[in-house]
Parts: sequence; C-alpha cells; structure tokens
Amino acid sequence: MKLLEFLRGERKKTASVAKERLQIIVAHQRSQRDQPDYMPMLERELLEVIRRYVKVDQDAINISLDRDEDCSVLELNVTLPRT
Amino acid sequence: MKLLEFLRGERKKTASVAKERLQIIVAHQRSQRDQPDYMPMLERELLEVIRRYVKVDQDAINISLDRDEDCSVLELNVTLPRT
Repeated sequence: MKLLEFLRGERKKTASVAKERLQIIVAHQRSQRDQPDYMPMLERELLEVIRRYVKVDQDAINISLDRDEDCSVLELNVTLPRT
Repeated sequence: MKLLEFLRGERKKTASVAKERLQIIVAHQRSQRDQPDYMPMLERELLEVIRRYVKVDQDAINISLDRDEDCSVLELNVTLPRT
C-alpha cells in the first residue's frame, strides 16, 4: 500500500497545522484514447456527496483536473470548518 | 503537487498492463478525536456515483479503509471493463 504510506508521510509533515482536511484523488487510467471523459461530471457529483456530509464553503474547496494521453487525475482538497 | 507525481510514477510502471482502471483515494485528516466517522457512508455513496458512470461488477471493486488516531484513508480500486 505505497500510496497510503505516501499520504501518511504527507500527514506527519503537516501535522502542526492541525486543520481538518479532506482530500480526494480520482485517477482514471484509460487503455484507449478518444473515450468520453466523465471526470468533470464525476467532479460535480463527488462535490454533492461531500456536501451531504460536511458543510463547506465553495472557496474552501480547491479542485484540479490534470490530463494527459491516457490518464486523468482529479484532485479535490477541502479545508473543513472546525466543529 | 507531489501526490500527482507519485500517481504518475505508479502509472508509468504499470502501463504495460493496459487495463482500464479507476482509483479513488479519500483521506480525512481530523484535528479532534471522537468525531463521527462518515467514511463508511461516504464509501457507499462514492460507489453509487461510480456506478452511474461505469458498469462494473461488485468483484471488480477493491475497497480498503484504514484508520489511525487522526487520519482515515479510504481507497477504492476499480478495474473497468474494456469498452
């Protein structure tokens, strides 16, 4: 579980910040080009799901979508309000 | 964007496999303990969202939820059918 270890490493480094955070990474690896890209729609639906669980302002959400030939990576970073 | 680079590195290593894949990582870093953990519900809803976009069998989905004191990491790995 290398990615998990990576995320944990990140977490330890930033532990002093002590902010509630939610990070979602969606990586889609395609085997063929010219397929419909559903990432923008998926992004919207994921945001809807998140909003059902946590109350967040639009400006607390940082989204990036990165594409190359055969891989799309959607990254959502959410700073959660203190409870 | 270190995580992105990491995912890309992973992708290159496994490019020869040429399978369609979707990977979703949700990391929740809490600032306080004893908060309600919504990850299991979030997991269900994320699966519902994925199923709206891709037709996948239950056994094509691999899910793990890993928790420690102040961090929960949900990982969904989906092998997509060839289109």
